[in-house]
Amino acid sequence: MQTVELITRKRDGGTFSTGEIAWLIEHYTQGSIPDYQMAALLMAIYLRGMDSRETSDLTLAMARSGVQLRVNTQVSPVIDKHSTGGVGDKVTLAVAPLVAACGVAVGKMTGRGLGHTGGTVDKLESVDGFHVELTRDEFMRILQEHQIVLAGQSSELAPADGKLYALRDVTGTIESIPLIASSIMSKKLAVGASHLLLDVKFGSGAFMKTIEQARQLAHAMVEIGRAAGLHTVAAITSMEQPLGRAIGNAIELREAIDILRGQGPADVSELCYHEAAELLMMTGKATDETAANQIVAQAIQSGAAVKKLAEVIAAQGGNPRQIEQPELLPTAPIKTMLKSPRGGYIATINAEGIGVASMHLGAGRFKKGDPIDHRTGLILQAKAGDHLAAGDPLIEIHARDEQEAHDIQSSLIACYQWSESPIQTQPLIHDIIRP
Amino acid sequence: MQTVELITRKRDGGTFSTGEIAWLIEHYTQGSIPDYQMAALLMAIYLRGMDSRETSDLTLAMARSGVQLRVNTQVSPVIDKHSTGGVGDKVTLAVAPLVAACGVAVGKMTGRGLGHTGGTVDKLESVDGFHVELTRDEFMRILQEHQIVLAGQSSELAPADGKLYALRDVTGTIESIPLIASSIMSKKLAVGASHLLLDVKFGSGAFMKTIEQARQLAHAMVEIGRAAGLHTVAAITSMEQPLGRAIGNAIELREAIDILRGQGPADVSELCYHEAAELLMMTGKATDETAANQIVAQAIQSGAAVKKLAEVIAAQGGNPRQIEQPELLPTAPIKTMLKSPRGGYIATINAEGIGVASMHLGAGRFKKGDPIDHRTGLILQAKAGDHLAAGDPLIEIHARDEQEAHDIQSSLIACYQWSESPIQTQPLIHDIIRP
Repeated sequence: MQTVELITRKRDGGTFSTGEIAWLIEHYTQGSIPDYQMAALLMAIYLRGMDSRETSDLTLAMARSGVQLRVNTQVSPVIDKHSTGGVGDKVTLAVAPLVAACGVAVGKMTGRGLGHTGGTVDKLESVDGFHVELTRDEFMRILQEHQIVLAGQSSELAPADGKLYALRDVTGTIESIPLIASSIMSKKLAVGASHLLLDVKFGSGAFMKTIEQARQLAHAMVEIGRAAGLHTVAAITSMEQPLGRAIGNAIELREAIDILRGQGPADVSELCYHEAAELLMMTGKATDETAANQIVAQAIQSGAAVKKLAEVIAAQGGNPRQIEQPELLPTAPIKTMLKSPRGGYIATINAEGIGVASMHLGAGRFKKGDPIDHRTGLILQAKAGDHLAAGDPLIEIHARDEQEAHDIQSSLIACYQWSESPIQTQPLIHDIIRP
Repeated sequence: MQTVELITRKRDGGTFSTGEIAWLIEHYTQGSIPDYQMAALLMAIYLRGMDSRETSDLTLAMARSGVQLRVNTQVSPVIDKHSTGGVGDKVTLAVAPLVAACGVAVGKMTGRGLGHTGGTVDKLESVDGFHVELTRDEFMRILQEHQIVLAGQSSELAPADGKLYALRDVTGTIESIPLIASSIMSKKLAVGASHLLLDVKFGSGAFMKTIEQARQLAHAMVEIGRAAGLHTVAAITSMEQPLGRAIGNAIELREAIDILRGQGPADVSELCYHEAAELLMMTGKATDETAANQIVAQAIQSGAAVKKLAEVIAAQGGNPRQIEQPELLPTAPIKTMLKSPRGGYIATINAEGIGVASMHLGAGRFKKGDPIDHRTGLILQAKAGDHLAAGDPLIEIHARDEQEAHDIQSSLIACYQWSESPIQTQPLIHDIIRP
């Protein structure tokens, strides 16, 4: 097969067969197709698209390029969960132990944060001793013993995707629905859960800026799941303002513990309980929404949910006392309250701006491999729709020093838009896409 | 400047500033922009296009990437001529000495043949001792002394184009009007003639398959010339059947000598005389077409034209007696006459098919660097529109051995389409594009 012929065909709007896609991924992974040919092909795919059959084929080819865990063959059902990422998104931290406490196994590999969005691994590593580098055997043993495991993304999983993603990153070919969908789903298929819940975010703080893009991406991923035999449901959720009130690492873990205790902020708690209920319905643990909500409420009220988080923390080497007593989690030396410069209703809080400010405090990474400070971040004292008087608390800044706390104040203030009249806020969950 | 930002902008249909294009070419040439980023950018340019200002800027940036001869500053006017390439295209071999014999200097760098199209350098090298590897000083000295020089393409000229072309060749990004136009014109601008005549061919044997594509390419190149101060005129000519009757190397040189003696085939002779007259008008040597045609006719009839070819051959180390007595040029050991399998009017002769057959005889290259046989090729005994009886001579095959002469006969026959009724043939020159 001639690579140039395939590039030319896609350039002219043609489609690839299943065998051609398998050939391309196999030869790219082993290095016999050079980066410059794949870069031209990726741009052609970006501009010409791929149909749903090609997208599924690409996903499966990437999933097959490395280790396949097939967790589903040893524990069943086992659920996986993925968020496209946002600011203040601690949903996985809460939903995974919550669902496990309800009796559904959760086997998840998760990533680190980059840019203005955080990563679940970083937040979990706020706990002393907790580690995410697990062997395949450790992963399976912890999953079987505790019905929950939260590992770091293994580079052995879908290496074709890792190589392609690195190339897309430097060739302006990231923001393509079929390429994003296949990248996410290839790693999910390689883990091999039986059920997958996707949280596809849209808005200023999300990768997808509009609800239409989010909907397209969700449909593409649900379709891949259908084609690959992975039961997939996608929630389309808003990321117009940060999720919950905490943005950071230890700070967000504390908020997740609050959610598991039934004491979290309303918006993010509701989203977590809703996602947990959806997973119970998907896996047949609950027959309808009312039953699912009851099981979830019971896990919260009984303390089983927070206990499950402490259990997985302990299983992966962490100190469970920091979950039972969150005040033992690391805290920043400086806490400064930023006051509202004016009165009025908060119309919007720019999530990306808040994420970038948090990154400047050390809570996020400007580039891959940067160290992060688990202690720092922000706690929003009010959300969109709230009414404040001038001088009311706006944001609590958790910083390494006074200077950093001071330096970000004007950019934080610039994240707020105000209204003289009351604001109608939108629900977080806009749609649920089922196969 | 961020390369990814520029790729992304072109991907989304944006345009580059003059400085951005200069930056891209400079950094790509010196290797600080890697091939994979340039490949993605080339595909974005292929699919999104470039406006005429961007195309001119790209051309000038590539022309500046290496040595610039500026022949025009030492001899003026000095003309250059370029054909987009075809089958049986010996026009440069005839027009260059013809124009020089009329008193207009010709400084040309020219290429080797590849695939089904021939190259002027290969045809000239049929002469014993003739060589095209000239230093810059030799190039200028021969041009000043003889008003004509026919050198090989120097790799010092527009090296950015050489590097980009090699990348386009393996990334499916060859057939883009702005990229083709800038590639051709960058080398012309680096030579630095004062006047340029382009022969843009269309049809089955040409790179541009339709007249519309040829017209677009011609307009793009004339516009680049205008922007760069190089007086450029483009002829749009047909390559639906081979040009003239000879296809090969020594065979085509012999036909060029016939043309310079006024004894060549009508179609190609007319084209050569027309192009020569156009160049005399462009450079002000003739005020109108009638005057130009008279000067050209005088150079033919006086023998000055063929004498000028012998002169440049001698100046570049070749044996001029092989021009004065073309029977001294190398000839193939086997000459076989292929007879017409049927009677009728020849409707079309597939130029690409004839070119490929000639390549199989050793007269052309399958890939860069292949050796060629200067002796072999084909002489068409009839052209489109001619009426033949079954058994009349169709093509004289000049081959290395009987086997090769035999092996190509069926593919040659397949190049012909026939008609029962007379055929209206089209003129060779379809249009002249002036600035």
